Amino acid sequence: MSDQQGMDFLDGVPSNWGRWGEDDELGAVNYLTNEQVLRGIRAVEDGETFALGLPIGRPEGDPVWPGRDGTNHYMDRDKGHYESGKATAHGRAQGADDVVHMPLHGTTHVDAPGHIWYDDEMYNGFDANTTKGGLDRCSVDTLGDHGILGRGVLLDIARHRGVETLEPGARITLDELRECAAAQGVELEQRDVPVLRTGWLEQYYDEDGIDIYEGKFREPGLTHSEELLEWFHEREIPAFGTDTIANEQTISDETGTPIPLHAGLLRDQGVVFNEMLDLSALAEACDESGRYAFFYVAAPLKFVHGTGSPVNPLAVR
Amino acid sequence: MSDQQGMDFLDGVPSNWGRWGEDDELGAVNYLTNEQVLRGIRAVEDGETFALGLPIGRPEGDPVWPGRDGTNHYMDRDKGHYESGKATAHGRAQGADDVVHMPLHGTTHVDAPGHIWYDDEMYNGFDANTTKGGLDRCSVDTLGDHGILGRGVLLDIARHRGVETLEPGARITLDELRECAAAQGVELEQRDVPVLRTGWLEQYYDEDGIDIYEGKFREPGLTHSEELLEWFHEREIPAFGTDTIANEQTISDETGTPIPLHAGLLRDQGVVFNEMLDLSALAEACDESGRYAFFYVAAPLKFVHGTGSPVNPLAVR
Amino acid sequence: MSDQQGMDFLDGVPSNWGRWGEDDELGAVNYLTNEQVLRGIRAVEDGETFALGLPIGRPEGDPVWPGRDGTNHYMDRDKGHYESGKATAHGRAQGADDVVHMPLHGTTHVDAPGHIWYDDEMYNGFDANTTKGGLDRCSVDTLGDHGILGRGVLLDIARHRGVETLEPGARITLDELRECAAAQGVELEQRDVPVLRTGWLEQYYDEDGIDIYEGKFREPGLTHSEELLEWFHEREIPAFGTDTIANEQTISDETGTPIPLHAGLLRDQGVVFNEMLDLSALAEACDESGRYAFFYVAAPLKFVHGTGSPVNPLAVR
Amino acid sequence: MSDQQGMDFLDGVPSNWGRWGEDDELGAVNYLTNEQVLRGIRAVEDGETFALGLPIGRPEGDPVWPGRDGTNHYMDRDKGHYESGKATAHGRAQGADDVVHMPLHGTTHVDAPGHIWYDDEMYNGFDANTTKGGLDRCSVDTLGDHGILGRGVLLDIARHRGVETLEPGARITLDELRECAAAQGVELEQRDVPVLRTGWLEQYYDEDGIDIYEGKFREPGLTHSEELLEWFHEREIPAFGTDTIANEQTISDETGTPIPLHAGLLRDQGVVFNEMLDLSALAEACDESGRYAFFYVAAPLKFVHGTGSPVNPLAVR
Repeated sequence: MSDQQGMDFLDGVPSNWGRWGEDDELGAVNYLTNEQVLRGIRAVEDGETFALGLPIGRPEGDPVWPGRDGTNHYMDRDKGHYESGKATAHGRAQGADDVVHMPLHGTTHVDAPGHIWYDDEMYNGFDANTTKGGLDRCSVDTLGDHGILGRGVLLDIARHRGVETLEPGARITLDELRECAAAQGVELEQRDVPVLRTGWLEQYYDEDGIDIYEGKFREPGLTHSEELLEWFHEREIPAFGTDTIANEQTISDETGTPIPLHAGLLRDQGVVFNEMLDLSALAEACDESGRYAFFYVAAPLKFVHGTGSPVNPLAVR
Repeated sequence: MSDQQGMDFLDGVPSNWGRWGEDDELGAVNYLTNEQVLRGIRAVEDGETFALGLPIGRPEGDPVWPGRDGTNHYMDRDKGHYESGKATAHGRAQGADDVVHMPLHGTTHVDAPGHIWYDDEMYNGFDANTTKGGLDRCSVDTLGDHGILGRGVLLDIARHRGVETLEPGARITLDELRECAAAQGVELEQRDVPVLRTGWLEQYYDEDGIDIYEGKFREPGLTHSEELLEWFHEREIPAFGTDTIANEQTISDETGTPIPLHAGLLRDQGVVFNEMLDLSALAEACDESGRYAFFYVAAPLKFVHGTGSPVNPLAVR
Repeated sequence: MSDQQGMDFLDGVPSNWGRWGEDDELGAVNYLTNEQVLRGIRAVEDGETFALGLPIGRPEGDPVWPGRDGTNHYMDRDKGHYESGKATAHGRAQGADDVVHMPLHGTTHVDAPGHIWYDDEMYNGFDANTTKGGLDRCSVDTLGDHGILGRGVLLDIARHRGVETLEPGARITLDELRECAAAQGVELEQRDVPVLRTGWLEQYYDEDGIDIYEGKFREPGLTHSEELLEWFHEREIPAFGTDTIANEQTISDETGTPIPLHAGLLRDQGVVFNEMLDLSALAEACDESGRYAFFYVAAPLKFVHGTGSPVNPLAVR
Repeated sequence: MSDQQGMDFLDGVPSNWGRWGEDDELGAVNYLTNEQVLRGIRAVEDGETFALGLPIGRPEGDPVWPGRDGTNHYMDRDKGHYESGKATAHGRAQGADDVVHMPLHGTTHVDAPGHIWYDDEMYNGFDANTTKGGLDRCSVDTLGDHGILGRGVLLDIARHRGVETLEPGARITLDELRECAAAQGVELEQRDVPVLRTGWLEQYYDEDGIDIYEGKFREPGLTHSEELLEWFHEREIPAFGTDTIANEQTISDETGTPIPLHAGLLRDQGVVFNEMLDLSALAEACDESGRYAFFYVAAPLKFVHGTGSPVNPLAVR
């Protein structure tokens, strides 16, 4: 992506810096108090659970942001090791062991609040120098300590538009979120975790699907607007998820710059981006039942100094 | 560990093979139906949540099974990369990215049902040859698809004994589980997820704690007995966790062999081992409140062909 | 590549099995005795040295066999680590440290004799089962212990044809080797290390070059023929190198199968394949001087159980 | 190691900065001209060759600097993969492939000139900021492009002292180098590559050997002295090697600081440190024959931005 001037569009945007004290490294997930956990639980009806994480390390490949590596999986020990004498059994028992070489943002994951910064300051004003060699501030283990539990709401934008997938680069507006919720008959409430379905990553796995890497890589999604940032801020949205790699338009229709919401939402408000969700089964169930709210439970791994973490979020309904 | 004879103690032990069909790869987690999810939720009172995963990749080190590697964390990009010209900013925004090299059993994790086998057969009779190059059967992604949600019960064996930690190699019996539950005033119910606190791994982090690697490595824990295996089977226990690396006595007092429950419980009954939990904060809260049951939520990552997965289980109470 | 029948073309091919004893794991490099080292040295005139290894881990990418990963390079410590307090200096001195995640065949490299086998037997008849979990037999450390030193001869096939690069899939015959040597005025002698220049990989680095990955991946090169195998055998060729990834036609014009010389030369005769050489500078110097022989020195790293090793061969003339 | 004051001992030490121009990143290896290559070759008598690299990735472990990781080796494909259907054969042929996760200084290796710096300047005055994210200047690929070929001289200090190994922390002085050479009957000439044998790392591999990690880690070796630095400078020593991990006393008897020669020799003169050589067999041959000079040939791999490279140096005599 070329170097862009400006980003004046960030001047005056809503901020959560200082809201939870000058030493806060958790961000908007602070909104998810015990009360919010209970509110999320109240959305559960029959206990049906959907695991929203993607498979990791498929031999045929996984979807990744262009240029990023995928996950490599290696066996440290398997049945073969015993046959060649490289492993010795404990009596009759034998076992297999493995290791991965994995980019922390290489599958369904959350971004740590310190993942993105500008003007050398990350969320809550911490100095970007603290990222050298690993994140000292706003690292993902802080998210892992807290967990991300609350009331989730699926907004199936794809079904709302009557399509299998939004087109490359398609924009989702705040108005469309509201219209989709209304059409679905679900309330968007304070401190909800909105989960948007575009259908985009499902294409990757579909033999007959579109090639998401064809031409310029352009994901559909929300994008910067004063109105949207205000809405997130006023609604005290702690986190949001989508089934795209970056959770927003790759190049913003509004600003002409790449993924500006990572600046306006993650860096300025400390909102957690839960990216690359697998939403097809959840969407099917919501559509059939007419229920779109659920208990959203995500537990990032506590990677010390981590800029993000793979996560397998659960939607319990 | 030296090669041992026998393991006749496994003859005639309870088995869940075939219980969920000849193609089942999930194991005892099949017991955790939607109804069990609701039962787990009913244990929640105020929404207080504990994240039971250990920190991963601490510069000072993490506890690992002797011989196994720890997790290495590397920055792919940080502020320094921009300063040396190796990364170019998107307008004003900059970001950090990272990668890990991680053994899948190198931190708080679950074992896949196919992790251990004997007589060339893993859980549900699948051939151990299917482990070559990765687990084709009984791999951890199956656990990740389902999730592990149910009613968890903390059995704080350490507090019950009035100690900070059980001694190296100390044995926990089924009777002690019952006594501990009784003393704590909590019922052990059908399909519960028992979580045992020994205090063992807390020592690793305590400067004044015992050196868990001193001498022969001998963890405290449950161990093989016909009575214990019968209890797990009859009580339909889907999973259990502890704050030790292997969830059982390193060398069994009963059989004289290493970690026999991995054969009798994991391989024969398909019970999930959730190892290396961080239980000190949860135990504190349970002790203060007198409440020991909670909603146990664990979402393993869907590593294709994986023998296990790091996981950050949540205890919601 | 699809599964192919046959390979009857290997029946009756020359073999070096047993030539150096039934326990030999070194292969045709056995031919490179001290006398051969001296013969190689006699080819040196002014001491000019060319390092034939490719750069490893270029940010813009390295050429690799389709499907294989490239090398990832990570800093363990750099100046930034000191600035963020993650590293502490020794007095005034500071340092940088790094690590790679590297496929052993991912750059200029040699194949170990045990890299390829058929009918479950590798070079000298060792059982392919010994490869499980790592090569017990015919591994690359044996090559590293011995070193590969001898008289090398550049056969600049590209210049001989008057082209920058041979075309995709072009075939080089034994006759052409002889003609090229004759045209260059250099003798091909017993136990020489022939080094063939096709110009192929130079295209990868050339912005205006052909795209070596376009369409089906088809490298130019030698290929199977009874005559060629006989020539290698009778001439006691210990090793040969090219500037392609596989050292031979990707799909053989002769057999219709993929890279058959790995079977006929590596597996049956134990000939070392030194692949992915950077030959442009050496070729320039040979062309200008009319001298095509040199002291060829390659020292594979002693990776225990390794199937190959990166190597930076030197051509000293 | 604790933070040390001073290093005034570096004030006024000899320097090679600017000797080969202000843009030089190669260092003292510039001394190894074609003429030096020929001089090295003149030391060859019968072509006997010793490969001085250590084995890499032994299951039982490799010697590493305390705190540094060892090399991990994983199979990407082996016979087992075919048996479980994860790999498909090309006709009858099958193969094995692998990957390593390797610290570049984790085995026999050379340090790049930019590996160490002080006062924010590395060899030839380049800014230490250029190390962020990888070495832009004075990286190891520059060494790999040139190669390190010259006349090597073994100084078997251990035999000279009549011991199997020098003691932990023992100091080798310049006088001892001269005495050893004299006793061995070998001349130390201009631009030689001295190779010092202490016997130290041989202990690691010897079951009955001393434990090199016992107590404080203290390697024997040369150390800082004005006289020694002057000698290296005046003699135009391009590189030197030993059979220890750091090529010098761990904590200097002279300065009281850790490994000061990395500052005085590597940083100020650009001298290459070839560390962790395996010298026992070479020493045996030199002792028996009375010949101590040889053709020293080392070809570091061209790791882009690398701070060092594994290498398997050859001693040809």
